[in-house]
Amino acid sequence: MSACAPVEPTGSLLLAWQVSQQTVLLIGAGTVAASRLYHLVCANPRKVIIVAPDNDQVDPEIRYRLENPSPGTELEWIKRPYREHQDLDDLLPKDSKDGLGMVLVATDDATLSSRICTECRHRRIPVNVADVPPECDFYFGSVLRRGALSVMVSTNGKGPRLAARLRRRIEKSIPEGAGLAIDKVGKLRAALRVKEPAKDPETIERRMQWMIRVSDLWSVDQLARMDDAMRQAVLAGWESDMALGYWDVVRSRSLADRFGYLAHMVARLVTGQANGSCPVDRDPDGNPFKCPFLVGMTGFVAGLATASSIAAVIALRYSQLVHASTVAR
Amino acid sequence: MSACAPVEPTGSLLLAWQVSQQTVLLIGAGTVAASRLYHLVCANPRKVIIVAPDNDQVDPEIRYRLENPSPGTELEWIKRPYREHQDLDDLLPKDSKDGLGMVLVATDDATLSSRICTECRHRRIPVNVADVPPECDFYFGSVLRRGALSVMVSTNGKGPRLAARLRRRIEKSIPEGAGLAIDKVGKLRAALRVKEPAKDPETIERRMQWMIRVSDLWSVDQLARMDDAMRQAVLAGWESDMALGYWDVVRSRSLADRFGYLAHMVARLVTGQANGSCPVDRDPDGNPFKCPFLVGMTGFVAGLATASSIAAVIALRYSQLVHASTVAR
Repeated sequence: MSACAPVEPTGSLLLAWQVSQQTVLLIGAGTVAASRLYHLVCANPRKVIIVAPDNDQVDPEIRYRLENPSPGTELEWIKRPYREHQDLDDLLPKDSKDGLGMVLVATDDATLSSRICTECRHRRIPVNVADVPPECDFYFGSVLRRGALSVMVSTNGKGPRLAARLRRRIEKSIPEGAGLAIDKVGKLRAALRVKEPAKDPETIERRMQWMIRVSDLWSVDQLARMDDAMRQAVLAGWESDMALGYWDVVRSRSLADRFGYLAHMVARLVTGQANGSCPVDRDPDGNPFKCPFLVGMTGFVAGLATASSIAAVIALRYSQLVHASTVAR
Repeated sequence: MSACAPVEPTGSLLLAWQVSQQTVLLIGAGTVAASRLYHLVCANPRKVIIVAPDNDQVDPEIRYRLENPSPGTELEWIKRPYREHQDLDDLLPKDSKDGLGMVLVATDDATLSSRICTECRHRRIPVNVADVPPECDFYFGSVLRRGALSVMVSTNGKGPRLAARLRRRIEKSIPEGAGLAIDKVGKLRAALRVKEPAKDPETIERRMQWMIRVSDLWSVDQLARMDDAMRQAVLAGWESDMALGYWDVVRSRSLADRFGYLAHMVARLVTGQANGSCPVDRDPDGNPFKCPFLVGMTGFVAGLATASSIAAVIALRYSQLVHASTVAR
């Protein structure tokens, strides 16, 4: 069994925590607390309770989020310092049966932070004290979000600056429409389940394989552009077990689309691939303007044309000279 | 405050969970359980207890991991089915004061899974039942690991296939040595703290700014190659507040390094940048072979050379003809 992946000791278990039914306690309202609050509201918890005095150290982003709450998440600001041995038990909404989901501490008071951590661990409530690794049951990473898509870069606390730099690299490598593409794939899968609702293992397997074949034909940006008509056209291929790509079903023929279609056909001819875009860097999401083959060939043709023009001018000039000297002789 | 980032409702809170002090219970030993076990051993928990009968449905990877345990994580396999109302309380090591950290359920028995979930939620133990979102307090995503670096792609359960595809794209965009680079940055920071241990806010700020300036000068691959001598040379710049890059301190002069240095100097001349590698796609980690400017220019020069050669041959041939006809006349 040497085929098993070797253990990479990252030291962290990366998880997508579901907080939609949870109440989260955030202690503090400075810059770090504002960053925590942003992480939270994107994850859409039931309620966030902020405990912090209302003074000039409150980050403006905290005030902004409180004034512009996002649907589905209740925000409450208790404008006073944290009360030890009371708040963890008292602050929970009366109708909550599950207790506090987690506690995030982001204050300057290191002694108080430590004591809050102890209180939480006593009650088995997961806790994070900003900048104090031993008092964290979990760390936050550098996160990139696009719709339903989220990507976290974690260095297990070793290099936050490098984590942010890698996140920016990753940001460039993820197509603009990735979030939308995920929604569209979800819609296609749901529509297929309506069209073919059978639950026997064979149909489930066939459905999964067809979804894989179809989605692998589409680039992320193409998936993001899949409208209702295109989805219907793709679904029409199900009975005959045909997987249709973007160029097989696209109806709108804008100038950009026509050019894309032309490029698609040329690439298909050159590479012999059904869905080729760049023969060097084969994948449906490849950017043709960064394909070394296309860029290099364009340069080659440009060089060819330039040198030919110069040669033609010289040849013309030379033949005129020869002609002139012949006539003169 | 329109400068605040808009809320991206991803629906999940991505966290790097610290399990080094935890005991985790894994119920099941099939393919999904094997994947869960791999996630776990990379995160290095104190102990993993697997509960599953020893039959031919046990994934070979599970047996492999049990035979090749990684240091720091104890693995125990209890070879029988899960016992309701008993195992959650009985299986915990006697010396553990914290209870079970989490429970992962990966069995085919949907009814049993549901009941395990209820038992866990009763005890406030975080639980994940594979493929049953409502019975999950957290999801697993598609994870890429390199040393201390880990990147999770989560689509909040909407498109696992697309998540894996995006993870592969991300994999290509992250330099080989990223994991090592993180370790090296950690070492540099630690060495700086030894050299300048002062804890006054001003020194802390100056130390942070210097680290940022230095690390931004180095590509990820260069950081990965930072050895002890290079680290010392970089640290020597601290007193004079100088940030030194890879080419300022590199001692080894292998052929590849000499070529790299040449390319670095040419890029510096062309772009006027201290650390330029590609004027189109400016960043220290840019791959010069994918730089559209360099590739296009290479093609242009190649085209120029080709056409010039052809022109020269034609010109030579033509002048011979002209010469011959002149002599003949």
